Amino acid sequence: MNESINQNTGFGERSTDMGGRMVNKDGTFNIRRIGIRVHHRVSNYQNMLTMPRWQFLLVIFFVYLLINCFFTALYWYSGTEGLQGISHQKDSLGKLKEVFFFSTQTLTTVGYGRINPISETANWIAAIESLIGFLSLAIATGLLYGRFSRPRAFIRFSDLIVYTHYKGGKALMFRLVCYKDDHLLTNAEIKVNVRIVMEDNSYRFYNLKLERSRVDSLVLNWTVVHPIDEDSPFKDLSQKEIVNLQPEISAYLTGFDEVYSSMVVARISYAIQDFKFGFKFLPMYFSKSKRTDLDLAKLNLIDQE
Amino acid sequence: MNESINQNTGFGERSTDMGGRMVNKDGTFNIRRIGIRVHHRVSNYQNMLTMPRWQFLLVIFFVYLLINCFFTALYWYSGTEGLQGISHQKDSLGKLKEVFFFSTQTLTTVGYGRINPISETANWIAAIESLIGFLSLAIATGLLYGRFSRPRAFIRFSDLIVYTHYKGGKALMFRLVCYKDDHLLTNAEIKVNVRIVMEDNSYRFYNLKLERSRVDSLVLNWTVVHPIDEDSPFKDLSQKEIVNLQPEISAYLTGFDEVYSSMVVARISYAIQDFKFGFKFLPMYFSKSKRTDLDLAKLNLIDQE
Amino acid sequence: MNESINQNTGFGERSTDMGGRMVNKDGTFNIRRIGIRVHHRVSNYQNMLTMPRWQFLLVIFFVYLLINCFFTALYWYSGTEGLQGISHQKDSLGKLKEVFFFSTQTLTTVGYGRINPISETANWIAAIESLIGFLSLAIATGLLYGRFSRPRAFIRFSDLIVYTHYKGGKALMFRLVCYKDDHLLTNAEIKVNVRIVMEDNSYRFYNLKLERSRVDSLVLNWTVVHPIDEDSPFKDLSQKEIVNLQPEISAYLTGFDEVYSSMVVARISYAIQDFKFGFKFLPMYFSKSKRTDLDLAKLNLIDQE
Amino acid sequence: MNESINQNTGFGERSTDMGGRMVNKDGTFNIRRIGIRVHHRVSNYQNMLTMPRWQFLLVIFFVYLLINCFFTALYWYSGTEGLQGISHQKDSLGKLKEVFFFSTQTLTTVGYGRINPISETANWIAAIESLIGFLSLAIATGLLYGRFSRPRAFIRFSDLIVYTHYKGGKALMFRLVCYKDDHLLTNAEIKVNVRIVMEDNSYRFYNLKLERSRVDSLVLNWTVVHPIDEDSPFKDLSQKEIVNLQPEISAYLTGFDEVYSSMVVARISYAIQDFKFGFKFLPMYFSKSKRTDLDLAKLNLIDQE
Repeated sequence: MNESINQNTGFGERSTDMGGRMVNKDGTFNIRRIGIRVHHRVSNYQNMLTMPRWQFLLVIFFVYLLINCFFTALYWYSGTEGLQGISHQKDSLGKLKEVFFFSTQTLTTVGYGRINPISETANWIAAIESLIGFLSLAIATGLLYGRFSRPRAFIRFSDLIVYTHYKGGKALMFRLVCYKDDHLLTNAEIKVNVRIVMEDNSYRFYNLKLERSRVDSLVLNWTVVHPIDEDSPFKDLSQKEIVNLQPEISAYLTGFDEVYSSMVVARISYAIQDFKFGFKFLPMYFSKSKRTDLDLAKLNLIDQE
Repeated sequence: MNESINQNTGFGERSTDMGGRMVNKDGTFNIRRIGIRVHHRVSNYQNMLTMPRWQFLLVIFFVYLLINCFFTALYWYSGTEGLQGISHQKDSLGKLKEVFFFSTQTLTTVGYGRINPISETANWIAAIESLIGFLSLAIATGLLYGRFSRPRAFIRFSDLIVYTHYKGGKALMFRLVCYKDDHLLTNAEIKVNVRIVMEDNSYRFYNLKLERSRVDSLVLNWTVVHPIDEDSPFKDLSQKEIVNLQPEISAYLTGFDEVYSSMVVARISYAIQDFKFGFKFLPMYFSKSKRTDLDLAKLNLIDQE
Repeated sequence: MNESINQNTGFGERSTDMGGRMVNKDGTFNIRRIGIRVHHRVSNYQNMLTMPRWQFLLVIFFVYLLINCFFTALYWYSGTEGLQGISHQKDSLGKLKEVFFFSTQTLTTVGYGRINPISETANWIAAIESLIGFLSLAIATGLLYGRFSRPRAFIRFSDLIVYTHYKGGKALMFRLVCYKDDHLLTNAEIKVNVRIVMEDNSYRFYNLKLERSRVDSLVLNWTVVHPIDEDSPFKDLSQKEIVNLQPEISAYLTGFDEVYSSMVVARISYAIQDFKFGFKFLPMYFSKSKRTDLDLAKLNLIDQE
Repeated sequence: MNESINQNTGFGERSTDMGGRMVNKDGTFNIRRIGIRVHHRVSNYQNMLTMPRWQFLLVIFFVYLLINCFFTALYWYSGTEGLQGISHQKDSLGKLKEVFFFSTQTLTTVGYGRINPISETANWIAAIESLIGFLSLAIATGLLYGRFSRPRAFIRFSDLIVYTHYKGGKALMFRLVCYKDDHLLTNAEIKVNVRIVMEDNSYRFYNLKLERSRVDSLVLNWTVVHPIDEDSPFKDLSQKEIVNLQPEISAYLTGFDEVYSSMVVARISYAIQDFKFGFKFLPMYFSKSKRTDLDLAKLNLIDQE
């Protein structure tokens, strides 16, 4: 058992210091970084790439408003007489709005020209603003393209991990499926680790040996099987003993996605409440006359042995 | 024979449930996903990248029309008097067209300015529309660049696979060629699998061992050879017995393309109708005084032994 | 000892010719290239990607000014009467400024239109300038996006390397941590080399064998341990003897960053003044009820044994 | 000798059919593809990426002229009265030029507005043209960014390969150097092949075993050494016998470039006229008090033994 102790999990030897779950259900790690300033710890690029679309659009919109308000203030304090063509509205608010809209026309480089700068100051501000419009467009382009083209693994894992009969012994099994058309993974590999709680409340980490840890082309579903053999940390344990170990199984899958031309990674974690003893997965693909049907609604379909 | 049973094809153990051909002739997989909503299953990015050029341009054009119609409606309902400079056409249709063209001038940020917004509402709509024009440009840029720069393997496979004499025994051979100038593959590797139908109508998968499965630099053609030796699933089988197995041979080639600076993948599948027994490939490159000529028209040139 | 002599450091056999430190503290190499023209040696792309942000913005701004000055000169020498709408300022300087601002409006494609070209020459210059505006935008986009999306390793190494008791013997240890949220490294690997000075003042290079040189997912801190065993170049040496060898330890870490979908590399170098004998690292992560806290302020926290 | 026969060069068994040099001095392959249409064989993307800068700018400029001429023709045949503001030049040529310049203002979205479309037809043409301006910008952006960011290996190889004494025997040596500051290669590997002409005028390919085929970080120069031992195809051959074999040595180097975050490849080929018997390379880096100087002018510096 000791021989397969996992030295490569990225979690140190002093594992008793770890609290709660190691990996969240969605594959993110349950860690908080402290002792570092927020702007060092947080990755703006990563945030802009991964925030929800509505939030991203809101950010863009508010930045747009902000830049325009800033330049509106500049034009205003340099004097509205520097702008030609402001309509004959007399009150200040109306003029302010005209200046604001002129600013939007400059920033986006639409430049209708009804209002246009005539004073030197206003001209300089406009020259700077349209340059900033340029650069903003560049930044927006980068972010939008980055969001689009960001390689992601389109993998769904089963919610449960089953403990079932397998080849005369027992095995732990979960499964995963590539759910997007045209997004197969080439040279897919999976690594599975487990963290168990010892009697003295310390943690131990193990690699789980798999019946198969690599598929050439991941197109259909893949049932990942850990046979409970001589090398398994669950060897000769009863269901109750396994539960007492409070195992947390975490796995990550890597593969090459041809659409993105990049390696992608998917992660999952199973805590003890995700274990189903004495169940097995039911098939999720079926023969038709001309092709194979893969039913993703059956990913979590299990039945008692 | 059992030892080389392929556990890594990505196709599970219950292979009898598979229907029809496993991989289509063009290398795509013959699978339909069900039990999942279309917008989860379909990858818009992948579609925009891989659709034919004319279709892509049509999509761009219709999106352009659509956005303009939407903003035309907004300007219209906010009142055409919010737009200055609409020409003295009296009928509504004429005005509507003027508003539509003003919208196109705003979205593309061309902004001639003959027609321009004067009311606050029209100004706001224009400010939003030109921002959206910004973002649309960003999206179009991303998609176009993504289409351009998408790494593809410029590989052609022979249409046929031949069964021929080879080094005192027999071998299966197909060949492939890199057909683009300047697009050689570095560290090219090929993997070949076969699916055969057993007497009980179940399927079995095998890796086919190759005489050579890797080339440093794939510049010329490459004849992939599976010698039918002790480890081959076709060992000691007659032509008729091979046909009865209904073998489907699928292969994928990976390599590093220097132009794209990325790994690329090419796939092929041969069904029994693609087998040619007793034929061999004829040479397709020829010595000249100063260089080698590679004749791609001869890729499928075979002759009886 | 000789068996682990490192032939793979990238430093040749004639190492006595090397001067000073091999790798700087920040991981850059302490080498100057001569005998080559500056523009061959220097990578403009690399410079634009890695210069500080304020410097990058200054470069953009000055290029913007420069291009505008160039085109202002062209318009000026082709005659200001080629431009319509220059306001009724009489003096040359005022006209020059008007031409300059017209140039900025053309380059950024804002094109208000109050001033616009009427002569053929001015029209040609404007046609070229707006094209160059196009291309400049493309270049700015590329550079800005390149800066944003440039994969970097968000790794901090400890400032010190400790020499401490370890499993009944001695070991050298340093540690590193991934300091950005959401930027874990998959399949992280580290390689550690040492350069020592022999009695005849020549250099020798060794690979240092590590207790663990790979982690699946680098999320927390990682203490890199070189046990001083039979294969170590520091075997049986006293602290004083080690100091006399003037060891310079350099390491590089590679891993796959999912945010950037790319391999990243981090480097570090420890000279003899960075060695701490008889000290050990104190823990830097702590159990909470619900999660683990990783305290980056404690990265360099050491204590006497 | 036969055991190291290279099956992986990408050149087939029928090597007698090859003509002239296999790889050109600059690392490109000496092959012509026939039997395929030019537009299938040629990669436009690759061409636009790798053509010289002046040629690229010329292409951009001519495409710009072409698109403008096309749209000028459209406006012209739809009637110049559809465009408002054409100046009071009476002759057709003058009007044609005005239309052409209006077209450039539309395509680049500068849109001054002095001339602007009023008829429905002209408005439609302008709406399409500004959209095409959009897309052209996207294409130009993609190409320019692609040219910028295209990963290249900044490696220079020595012009010569020397045959010299080495560790009591003989060896073939060439060297290479990374000539750009900040562009070191991580995990650099080199593979060296040789093609020799047999007595019957057929060709044979061999891998050349190297004393060292990998460096962790390629920063300085690297002397690639093929010791002529038991496994070498040059074993026990005199200088004259080697010349008679007409060896052509080709090599390729791969490594990870951190600036581009990508693997890069460099290639070289040495024909018999590049061999120097009885010469050795002189050092090209030198110790200074504070750093190492790498003199690229000395890359080809050799001396008689």
